[in-house]
Amino acid sequence: MISFESDYVLGAHEKILELLLETNAENLSGYGEDPYCRRAKEKIRALCRCPDADIYFFTSGTQTNQTIIDAMLQPYEGVIAATTGHVNVHEAGAIEFTGHKVLAVPQEKGKIQADTLRNYLEIFYGDSSHEHMVFPGMIYLSYPTEYGTLYSLEELKEISQICKQYDLLLYVDGARLGYGLMNSESDVTLPDLAALCDVFYIGGAKVGALCGEAAVFPHHNAPKHFVTIMKQHGALAAKGRFLGVQFDALFTDDLYFQISRHAIEMADRMREIFCEKGYRFYVENSTNQLFIVLENEKMKELEKSVGFSFWEKLDESHTVVRFASSWATTMDEVDFLKQVL
Amino acid sequence: MISFESDYVLGAHEKILELLLETNAENLSGYGEDPYCRRAKEKIRALCRCPDADIYFFTSGTQTNQTIIDAMLQPYEGVIAATTGHVNVHEAGAIEFTGHKVLAVPQEKGKIQADTLRNYLEIFYGDSSHEHMVFPGMIYLSYPTEYGTLYSLEELKEISQICKQYDLLLYVDGARLGYGLMNSESDVTLPDLAALCDVFYIGGAKVGALCGEAAVFPHHNAPKHFVTIMKQHGALAAKGRFLGVQFDALFTDDLYFQISRHAIEMADRMREIFCEKGYRFYVENSTNQLFIVLENEKMKELEKSVGFSFWEKLDESHTVVRFASSWATTMDEVDFLKQVL
Amino acid sequence: MISFESDYVLGAHEKILELLLETNAENLSGYGEDPYCRRAKEKIRALCRCPDADIYFFTSGTQTNQTIIDAMLQPYEGVIAATTGHVNVHEAGAIEFTGHKVLAVPQEKGKIQADTLRNYLEIFYGDSSHEHMVFPGMIYLSYPTEYGTLYSLEELKEISQICKQYDLLLYVDGARLGYGLMNSESDVTLPDLAALCDVFYIGGAKVGALCGEAAVFPHHNAPKHFVTIMKQHGALAAKGRFLGVQFDALFTDDLYFQISRHAIEMADRMREIFCEKGYRFYVENSTNQLFIVLENEKMKELEKSVGFSFWEKLDESHTVVRFASSWATTMDEVDFLKQVL
Amino acid sequence: MISFESDYVLGAHEKILELLLETNAENLSGYGEDPYCRRAKEKIRALCRCPDADIYFFTSGTQTNQTIIDAMLQPYEGVIAATTGHVNVHEAGAIEFTGHKVLAVPQEKGKIQADTLRNYLEIFYGDSSHEHMVFPGMIYLSYPTEYGTLYSLEELKEISQICKQYDLLLYVDGARLGYGLMNSESDVTLPDLAALCDVFYIGGAKVGALCGEAAVFPHHNAPKHFVTIMKQHGALAAKGRFLGVQFDALFTDDLYFQISRHAIEMADRMREIFCEKGYRFYVENSTNQLFIVLENEKMKELEKSVGFSFWEKLDESHTVVRFASSWATTMDEVDFLKQVL
Repeated sequence: MISFESDYVLGAHEKILELLLETNAENLSGYGEDPYCRRAKEKIRALCRCPDADIYFFTSGTQTNQTIIDAMLQPYEGVIAATTGHVNVHEAGAIEFTGHKVLAVPQEKGKIQADTLRNYLEIFYGDSSHEHMVFPGMIYLSYPTEYGTLYSLEELKEISQICKQYDLLLYVDGARLGYGLMNSESDVTLPDLAALCDVFYIGGAKVGALCGEAAVFPHHNAPKHFVTIMKQHGALAAKGRFLGVQFDALFTDDLYFQISRHAIEMADRMREIFCEKGYRFYVENSTNQLFIVLENEKMKELEKSVGFSFWEKLDESHTVVRFASSWATTMDEVDFLKQVL
Repeated sequence: MISFESDYVLGAHEKILELLLETNAENLSGYGEDPYCRRAKEKIRALCRCPDADIYFFTSGTQTNQTIIDAMLQPYEGVIAATTGHVNVHEAGAIEFTGHKVLAVPQEKGKIQADTLRNYLEIFYGDSSHEHMVFPGMIYLSYPTEYGTLYSLEELKEISQICKQYDLLLYVDGARLGYGLMNSESDVTLPDLAALCDVFYIGGAKVGALCGEAAVFPHHNAPKHFVTIMKQHGALAAKGRFLGVQFDALFTDDLYFQISRHAIEMADRMREIFCEKGYRFYVENSTNQLFIVLENEKMKELEKSVGFSFWEKLDESHTVVRFASSWATTMDEVDFLKQVL
Repeated sequence: MISFESDYVLGAHEKILELLLETNAENLSGYGEDPYCRRAKEKIRALCRCPDADIYFFTSGTQTNQTIIDAMLQPYEGVIAATTGHVNVHEAGAIEFTGHKVLAVPQEKGKIQADTLRNYLEIFYGDSSHEHMVFPGMIYLSYPTEYGTLYSLEELKEISQICKQYDLLLYVDGARLGYGLMNSESDVTLPDLAALCDVFYIGGAKVGALCGEAAVFPHHNAPKHFVTIMKQHGALAAKGRFLGVQFDALFTDDLYFQISRHAIEMADRMREIFCEKGYRFYVENSTNQLFIVLENEKMKELEKSVGFSFWEKLDESHTVVRFASSWATTMDEVDFLKQVL
Repeated sequence: MISFESDYVLGAHEKILELLLETNAENLSGYGEDPYCRRAKEKIRALCRCPDADIYFFTSGTQTNQTIIDAMLQPYEGVIAATTGHVNVHEAGAIEFTGHKVLAVPQEKGKIQADTLRNYLEIFYGDSSHEHMVFPGMIYLSYPTEYGTLYSLEELKEISQICKQYDLLLYVDGARLGYGLMNSESDVTLPDLAALCDVFYIGGAKVGALCGEAAVFPHHNAPKHFVTIMKQHGALAAKGRFLGVQFDALFTDDLYFQISRHAIEMADRMREIFCEKGYRFYVENSTNQLFIVLENEKMKELEKSVGFSFWEKLDESHTVVRFASSWATTMDEVDFLKQVL
C-alpha cells in the first residue's frame, strides 16, 4: 500500500548506497577516525561557515539528544522544552534517565514563545527558594517543530538573546532540518543556526540516510573528552565509516538540500490537494508533515486505501492524523493520494 | 522576632529530647537494629492497624521521596504528580536524578482531581506510540498538599480505584501528616491511608522531631533488600537510634496527634484573626499553613514586625505569603499576630 | 597499507550490501517492525533451537551491554566480570553510568575460573555486612574473551550451575561470537549458549556487518517493555530495517558461519607463520586475534610495513601487539604478512 | 553486655545534648542558615587555618562521599580508591549509583602506595585506547583507613604531588578523623589536610555526635550551587540546626580532640592487653580499631562475654575480628576486657 505514514519508511538515497558500495573494501580506522568522517565534517563546517566547529556522528535522534543534553548541562540543571517537545514526550524519559529534568513550558503550535520563556525565567529567578529547584541550563527547540512549524529568524534571535541574558545554552534538534530549511516560509539558514546555537544536529535518518545524525558544536565548543562521553552513553559506533560515508554523500553536490526541497514540493502539492478537497488542517505549516483532522468514519475508510499515522484524538468523533512526504515521495504517489481522498 | 515563617523553625518537642537523654548511654546496635526503632515501628503498625507493615526511618523528606519512588518504580516508569507537587518543584530534581520522570498533571488548589488522572491515563494508553513514552507507574499525592488542602476519604478511594484499574502504585507524602489528620475537615485516618496506599510516610521534622520521616509499606511490601537500597541512596543512618527514639517518643501517649491538634487550634485561631481583619486567603484550607494575599506595601510593613514566608507573586501589586503554625506555636504568639495585623 | 589492526577495518560483506540495495525501495514500518527484522529473528531462533526467544537488534556492542545489563539487574545489583572484561575496562564506564557496579574478579587469560566465582560468592554471602555491599546479580562472560580464549562447554555448564545456585543471571557477550564458534577448539554451539544463558548477543559489526548486534533472550525472558527501555537508553533505531536486513543476510545460507570459519582459517595460517618465524605468543588461543610479544625495536620496524594494534606494554623492552584476521582477510594478505615478518 | 563492637554504639557526648537542649526553643532558619551552623563553620575554618573554606554539613558518611564525589567529578571520570576503601566495598554502590566508576587499586594494610598510584596512572595514560576508558579524576583516601592505619605527612604530600601532576582531585574521608589525628603515630594536622586536599570531611557520628559529617572545601572551592546539588542528592536537612549545634559543641573548647584522644588512650591500653595476653594482630595500627586474629573456638567463647565485630574469615580455623574503642569507652570497660580475654 502506498504510505505517507512517515518520512522514514524507505531505505537510503541511492547516492548514499553507491558510496557505501564504492568504499566498502577500503581498510579504514574505526570510531570516526576515517577520511569519510573527516570529509563529511569539512563539508558541514563549510556549509555552516564555522570552520572550527566540532562535529560528531550519532546513530539515532534520541541518542543524540540524550548525549548532548547530558554532556552540556551541569548536574543541577534541566533543559527547557515545549510540552510537546520530542524530548519531553516521545523519548521514553531518555533525558531523565541521565539525571536531568525536562522543564516543560507551554507551546503554541509546537513553538515556545519568547514571552513564555521570559516569564518562566523571571518567575524562576524571582522565587527565593529557587536553590531548591532545578536550574534552567539549556533551551531545546526543534526546527521544524513536532507540528512541522518553524521559528522565524527573528524569533530565533530573540530566544538566543534571552539565552545570553540568562546564561542558557541554545540547542536545536534538527531531526528534519532539511525540511525546515528548504521551504517557502523559512528565512533561516545553516550559518544562522551555527551563529545562534551552542549546538544543533542535522538529521540524516529522515532525510535520505539509513541512519545518522550530525551534531554540530559551531564554536569548537564540544564538551571535553566528548568521544569518551559518547562511548559511556553507548553512542560510539565501531565502524564510524558507515556514518561518515552517508553524510559525505548527503553533503556532496547539495544532495541534502535537493532531496529536502523535493520533499517540500511533494508536501506543497499534497497541501493543495487537501485544501481543494476541503480537508481541515489541525496545524498549518509549510514543511513535510501535514496534520489533518478527519472524522473517525472517514479515517477508517481512508485507512483501507492509503497509509498515514494516527496523531491524536481530537474529540469523540474526530482524529488528528499525519501525512508525511519525504525525499523519496513520488509525484505518482501524490497523484494516487489525490484520487483516494 | 516572632515568626510564622515555617513549621520547622524550632528544635524538637521536649519529650523527644528527654528520651534522647534518657537512652543516650545505652549500648545499641546501629543501622536501625535497636529496640527504639523496633518499638517505634510496633507503635506505628498498631496505629495503622497493619501488623505486617514494613517500616523504615529516613532523615529528610526529599531523601524519603527519592528513595521510595526510585525503589518502587520500574526503570521505564515515571511518577504522576501535581504540577505543584513537592517532588515536581522543590526537590531540585531529586526524582529525575534517579532516572525517573515526574509526569506533572494539572492541579486544583494543590490537589489532583480523579478526572484529571483518568483523562491522563486514557490519553496515554490510547496513544499508539506510548511505547516511546514514560509509563505512569505511581501516583504521588501529598496529604495535606503543598497548599494545605486535603483529599477527602471519598477522593482518596476514587484515586486508589483508578490506581488499581491502571496498575499504578499509590504513594502519599505525609511531610505534614499530623496536621492533615488532626483538623476539623479531615475524614481520613491512619488506617485509611494504610488501607489505600502502597506506601506513605509520616513526617517527623515538621511535627516535633529534630529530623526524621517514617516510611510505611502497609502490606509487608517494601522492595526486596530495601536496606541496601537505602544505603545506596546515602539514606541509611549509622546511629539509627536517634530516629527510632524520636518516633518512639512521638507515638507514645498520642504525642504526635496531640501536638498536631495543638498546631491546628493555633492555625484556626490565626484564620479567624485574618478573617476578622479582612485579609484575603489565596487558598482556603483547614490545616496549619495559611496562604494570604498581601498588597506589596502591606507586606513590607508587616515584615518589620513578624516573620512569614514569601510564597509567590500574584500580580504586580500583590504577593502570596505563608503564615504557618506548628506544634510549638503559643497562644501568646497568636495574640501578638493579632496585634500586628 | 595491508592491516591486521582489527576485525572492523572493512565495510560489510557483499551479500549484506546486496540485500540492502534490493530492499531499499520497500516501504517498511520503523522501529524493528518490518519483515526483515522478523525474518532475521526467525532464522536466529531456529539456529538457537529456542522458538520462543525474544530477539532485539542494537547498533553497537557497548550499547547492547549497557542496555541489557541495566535492564536485567535489580537496582541493588552489580555484574560480575573479569578484570579484563570489556565492560570493566573499555566501555568508558557505560555500566556504572546506568548505576550498576562492575564487580571485577581475577581472570586467567581473560577467563573467569569457576573456583574464582565460587570463592567470590562464598565470601560475599559469608560477610555479615553484605547488606551494605553491592549484590552480585549477573555474570558477564565474553565468548571468545578479550584475549581470544574460549570457555569449554564443561566450563560454561559449571558456571551456569553456580549461577543457578546463587540466583545469578548468565550473560555472554558475543561481539566476536562467530569466531568463537567456528574454530578447532570450540565445543560450544549456539543451542548450547541458548540453553545455558539468560541472555547473550550475536555480534555483527566484527563479523561482516556494517553495524549491528542481535540480543537473544532464549526463554522468552526479555524484561517487560524492553522496547521502551531501549528507547530510554537511546538504543532504538528508527529504520530498524537496516539492522534486520543485515542479520537476515548473515543468517541466510549459513553466511555468518562460513565467513567466521574463513577468518579462523586465515588466523590459523597466521599462527603457523608466527610460530615458524619464532615469534612468542602472549596468550595462545584458537580464534581470530593473535597476541604477539614483540621487542620494541622489532615493533617499530614492523609498523613500517604492516598494520597491527598496540595491546599493552609488557616490560621496558617488550610490547604485546594484536594481529586480527576477519571475514574479509585474504590469502594474499596472509602471504604478505609472511614476507614482512 | 559490654561491647567494643563499634564506635557508634552510644548516643552523643553530653555537651552536644546540652547545647541541643539549650538552643531548642530558639526560632531559627532552616537549611543550614542558622547561627550555630555559622559558628561551627567559623570554628572549623579557624582550626584548619583556611579562612575561606566552604563548609557543609551532612547526616551520614555515605551521603557525604556520594554527594561530594559525584559533584566534583566530571561525568567521564571515576574515583581511584583502595580495593578495601569504604566507597569500593561497603556503600552498596552509592558511587556507581551516581554514574561514576570506583577505580579500585591494590592496597597495603588499607593504604594506597604512591608507587601503585603512579603505576596506575602511567599505564592509563600510556594506553592508546584510554579514550574508551574511565578517566581517573580523583583519589579517595580514608584517614585513618578502614584498617585503622595512617598515611604519614610525607606520604600524603607525595600523593598530593601525584594529584597535581595528573590533574586529580584529592579527597580524604575522615569518618574517624579525630582518631586519626590524636594518636602517637600521626604527624598530620587539620591544617595539613586543608593544605593538601581539595576536599575532606570531619566525621561526627563516630566521634561523639548523634550524626553529622562536616565537609570542608578548604580553598573556597565547593562546586557551584552545592546546596542545590545536596538537595538533589536528598542530602539537605530542613532543620540544619541539629547538625550545626552538634559541630558547634564538638569544636568548642577542643572537645573533638579531647574525646578523640581519650578513645586512643583506651585503645592503646587495649592494645597492651591483647599483646600481653599473646593475641595476634591482623594489622598493627595506632588508632581506635584493633583487628585481632582469633581461633574460631576462642571467638565463640569470647562472644559469650564481650561484644566485638566479625571482620573477615582468615582461614578455615581463624577469623579476624574488630574491637573498637570510642570517645565513650571507660577504663572500667577496658578492665573488664582484660578479665575476659
